[in-house]
Amino acid sequence: MNTRRKFLKSGVIAGIAGLTLPKFSRADLKSNNTRELKLGIAGYSFVNFNLPDSLAMMQRMNVRYLCIKDFHLPLDSDQSTIQSFHHTLQKSNVKGYAVGPIYMKTEQEVSQAFEYAKRVGVDLIIGIPSPESLEYVDQHIKKYNIRYAIHNHGPEDKLYPNASTIYKHIKSFDERMGMCFDMGHNMRDGEDPIRDLERYKHRIFDIHLKNVTSASAEGTTCELGRGIIDIPLFVRTLDKIKYNGVCSLEFEKDMKDPLAGLAESKGYFQGVCNTLNLKVD
Amino acid sequence: MNTRRKFLKSGVIAGIAGLTLPKFSRADLKSNNTRELKLGIAGYSFVNFNLPDSLAMMQRMNVRYLCIKDFHLPLDSDQSTIQSFHHTLQKSNVKGYAVGPIYMKTEQEVSQAFEYAKRVGVDLIIGIPSPESLEYVDQHIKKYNIRYAIHNHGPEDKLYPNASTIYKHIKSFDERMGMCFDMGHNMRDGEDPIRDLERYKHRIFDIHLKNVTSASAEGTTCELGRGIIDIPLFVRTLDKIKYNGVCSLEFEKDMKDPLAGLAESKGYFQGVCNTLNLKVD
Repeated sequence: MNTRRKFLKSGVIAGIAGLTLPKFSRADLKSNNTRELKLGIAGYSFVNFNLPDSLAMMQRMNVRYLCIKDFHLPLDSDQSTIQSFHHTLQKSNVKGYAVGPIYMKTEQEVSQAFEYAKRVGVDLIIGIPSPESLEYVDQHIKKYNIRYAIHNHGPEDKLYPNASTIYKHIKSFDERMGMCFDMGHNMRDGEDPIRDLERYKHRIFDIHLKNVTSASAEGTTCELGRGIIDIPLFVRTLDKIKYNGVCSLEFEKDMKDPLAGLAESKGYFQGVCNTLNLKVD
Repeated sequence: MNTRRKFLKSGVIAGIAGLTLPKFSRADLKSNNTRELKLGIAGYSFVNFNLPDSLAMMQRMNVRYLCIKDFHLPLDSDQSTIQSFHHTLQKSNVKGYAVGPIYMKTEQEVSQAFEYAKRVGVDLIIGIPSPESLEYVDQHIKKYNIRYAIHNHGPEDKLYPNASTIYKHIKSFDERMGMCFDMGHNMRDGEDPIRDLERYKHRIFDIHLKNVTSASAEGTTCELGRGIIDIPLFVRTLDKIKYNGVCSLEFEKDMKDPLAGLAESKGYFQGVCNTLNLKVD
């Protein structure tokens, strides 16, 4: 069932009911503001779940953007498999908006990823390329007109621990080469996610939305409202820079039973947004 | 395990880590504001669950106030049962802050409820009394010094559909006679919950925190951020009136599997509060 439509429909009914009930003086007071942020789920949150179970959780939460991981749609999928995949997502009112993260050590793997993204029909790849292959990635960005976002993975990541290290690598390349900003790993690496969101705004194409327990390697993912990153300030900054990508929850806690933590995080994000007069798509 | 303490501890560690990482320029920026709202769960949300399973869900959500329903602690419980009940709650870092809702048709049932509340050691009863027994309730409030909050139950409720009907009944009685304001049922009855929160602030001792799909009898409970009540405005009003009771989530959807909806609602409330510089206890 399409819960989003159901919800919209109930809103319409509420409006009518309001008109027919004169004693109810306050109509739905929600802002008419049209600014909105897109909320998604990073496929890795569902590493222990098949596609139907993952989609059931997304429907339950009323979240409709998914970054596609290869365990749900293998890199060598043919057109018919991809078509069937999209159809399955559509039935759950979910849209696969990007693919990845995909590790690419060789030029061959870079080529494979771009061909995969082209077949899937998305214009964004989240990747972890070897620095030596960036020139090759750049050529592919130009050839395919597909954006490429490098993911930062915190203090353990020798290549791309934080946003600044990514930026140093990409700044001389095509502007369609950017980053999937993992705000949690950035924080774990001792780097301020709010400062870096603003600093690298032109190159941030995707965000792994999360919070962490401490600004150190020992920090782990927690529910969005329970960590050390000031999420209301982060969302204000998203609004300020007019971020128009997706904020995708990557929840690396309770990974065998992530629904409660994901739902709490989704609610938190939505609560912050709504209080700032931002809608959540 | 005490997740709250664990969380606080991690915050302290984060603070220390911040000091030893000079490149991290922004310490935990969260407000030092000490205003806070208490978040609880109305026992009825767990009508299909025994106490251990209910407490496990509360721990998972890091919520620590519970309004005690009789299916978890029967009205005729003796001191030893009550002691054991409190001990079980304490192990989960949960506090039973009130009892009810309890239906009371006779004076005998009123007496039983006050004796029960006294044995349980709470100073608040959520009740649905017959209007004829209010004088008797008033005497008991004075005798026991226990507050009594009447619950409104929407358009189907012939006695107390909304806050205004309760107020008419109680206004001439002791000020410790008030209401457990069910904002969802008030809305379902076409009455503005935000206006009424402010109007009856001196008599609102407890709140059933929820949202609904429409301002009519057909409206049903939904996740806090998905209904027609403007929750950010409601929370602003809670802050404005300096509400110091508990806001208890009563989630009457997916009642056989309520965790995801409760967690989303908890997250939403916390997100709204934090954006308004309010802490959630």
